[in-house]
Amino acid sequence: MADPMRIRAAVAGDETTVRVLMSHIMEPGTRRDAAGALIPGHFIKDVEATHNGKVVLEAAFSGAVAQNPFLSFKFKGGAKGDKVVVKWVDTKGDTRTDEALIA
Amino acid sequence: MADPMRIRAAVAGDETTVRVLMSHIMEPGTRRDAAGALIPGHFIKDVEATHNGKVVLEAAFSGAVAQNPFLSFKFKGGAKGDKVVVKWVDTKGDTRTDEALIA
Repeated sequence: MADPMRIRAAVAGDETTVRVLMSHIMEPGTRRDAAGALIPGHFIKDVEATHNGKVVLEAAFSGAVAQNPFLSFKFKGGAKGDKVVVKWVDTKGDTRTDEALIA
Repeated sequence: MADPMRIRAAVAGDETTVRVLMSHIMEPGTRRDAAGALIPGHFIKDVEATHNGKVVLEAAFSGAVAQNPFLSFKFKGGAKGDKVVVKWVDTKGDTRTDEALIA
């Protein structure tokens, strides 16, 4: 299983800023090995972020997204102690779900 | 038409960091006016970012995303001078497309 995401969520005024660092090889599927054979793609495809169980953002990554993807966004309505959950699914169907409390 | 996005893209090593600030009211559709009537929703639904014409990231926002949405992510393979284009579509079908060159 992949390493946990690092998720930071902090509220200021009525906006919560979320920063997510995912741990993933993000092999694009377009590179070739020394023998000239294509290296199979293996990358995070779908990301979903929820606040107190309600989806606030979904993202679809291409194979071009950098190794150990970083994603940051803001939403309104968060409060200290609320739960932010991030889930990703990769091209092999592997998945990882992690959470953080809003600080 | 909505105000332009502010897009910043900078390459370091083999990773390009993109920061996008969109200008949008992001009315969630769940608020009520003084008379108790629901205020119709009006928010950015879909965002697409391309690098040299190739999609690197798509995002789907909910009405909970904060006013003037901010989004940041990284992709690999960018070079100085390459074009990054970001497009959004909102719940009224309004759309805006802006671009930046990688610095």
